[in-house]
Amino acid sequence: MGGKGLSDPAFILIEPQMGENIGAAARGMWNFGLRHMRLTSPRDGWPNTKAVAMASGAGSLLDEALVAGTTAEAVGDLNYLYATTARPREMTKTVFTPEGAARDMAKRIAAGEKVGVLFGPERAGLANEDVVRANAIITVPVNPQFSSLNLAQCVLLMAYEWRRQADETPAEVYHTGKSDLAAAADVDRLIEHLISELDDAGFFFPETKRDSMVTNLANLYRCTPMTDQDVRTMRGVIRALAEKRLLKS
Amino acid sequence: MGGKGLSDPAFILIEPQMGENIGAAARGMWNFGLRHMRLTSPRDGWPNTKAVAMASGAGSLLDEALVAGTTAEAVGDLNYLYATTARPREMTKTVFTPEGAARDMAKRIAAGEKVGVLFGPERAGLANEDVVRANAIITVPVNPQFSSLNLAQCVLLMAYEWRRQADETPAEVYHTGKSDLAAAADVDRLIEHLISELDDAGFFFPETKRDSMVTNLANLYRCTPMTDQDVRTMRGVIRALAEKRLLKS
Repeated sequence: MGGKGLSDPAFILIEPQMGENIGAAARGMWNFGLRHMRLTSPRDGWPNTKAVAMASGAGSLLDEALVAGTTAEAVGDLNYLYATTARPREMTKTVFTPEGAARDMAKRIAAGEKVGVLFGPERAGLANEDVVRANAIITVPVNPQFSSLNLAQCVLLMAYEWRRQADETPAEVYHTGKSDLAAAADVDRLIEHLISELDDAGFFFPETKRDSMVTNLANLYRCTPMTDQDVRTMRGVIRALAEKRLLKS
Repeated sequence: MGGKGLSDPAFILIEPQMGENIGAAARGMWNFGLRHMRLTSPRDGWPNTKAVAMASGAGSLLDEALVAGTTAEAVGDLNYLYATTARPREMTKTVFTPEGAARDMAKRIAAGEKVGVLFGPERAGLANEDVVRANAIITVPVNPQFSSLNLAQCVLLMAYEWRRQADETPAEVYHTGKSDLAAAADVDRLIEHLISELDDAGFFFPETKRDSMVTNLANLYRCTPMTDQDVRTMRGVIRALAEKRLLKS
């Protein structure tokens, strides 16, 4: 592989220790559509059977991963580099949240830059010299009482935030069923049907409370997202209950 | 435990299978400050030593977890329930992204509601009847070619999004070092010092290009975030280089 045509960030695992974590990182990346993994000096050699087993459907990322001896070799073609680190380092550098970093990456990539994110080894995180090499820092805002994000989790969150930048899924959609939401007039007729049957049944008592009770019932139905089928079903329910009452009386 | 005083969402693992995943879910929750875990019918019984081993620092969530036999028992005290599901279900329901859901939860919790999120068993996800029981659906927008988020990853992403709602970490901060950024006047003097030495050295040639070269150099220094110490260091660098030139000449 190579940086040519790189239009997503490269995720660079620096001296990763456990194959399982490399595989889990590949899964986390591919879950959110990222393909460009790089590694420096994986502790247990390369290829790594445990990484392959864990990666399962994301195995092609491992096949295509660029494996380098040093950080300098792994990032030589990149224009802008982010270092993930949990601990504050005494350096003058921009510190991003994952969201802020993803936004910055999207901006740079749109401008034709090639960007990468460094992830440190499981035990100790990135060495200071790798953080210095980066242009900016990413720190996940975790619970200060418990900040033990592991490598694969950190990769997953960054991949998720990257995809959020490009993703156009609306934050909230009101309908997934097959049929369309009922028209207001059909819901009105349902409500009228219900009120009429309740009037017959003497439900509204005392009469002075009728208006507010009708308002509340109407509101309840208008706040419930109903399809045409739901409206038909509810009218059947009202009819069945009313008939049962008539049979009993 | 109980719902009393619940001011964060409860995360409810429905019939989780592997203890490791329950422990990893606890870690993911506590990484982002969430404490209220509930479980229904964990396959391998309860307490579960593998869950405890994996949870490590988040073990207290397991100690305090509410364990119930059925979904109905586990969620009985909650006012609003979200079901996480990867597959679209043919139901009329609001579908949230994790971000949209977290925003909705924050709104409801601020209004005094108690909310919970259902997570299905590893293999098959939530049963339809549990999705029906929920008031809304959460779907993580994953890569359609590879959507195999596991239980702990799904919990981690929801916990992360929950914390993002409350978190006030700025998306981008420009400084983390000990000393303050240098004042503009000090940077100006550094630039003047550099230009003056370069003039002495005959650097600006041809003279017609001097203005644009000066502009570029000045811009370079003004775009570099420098502390007072950095400015002093750079002036020392200029001085040293200039002296070396004088010594050689």
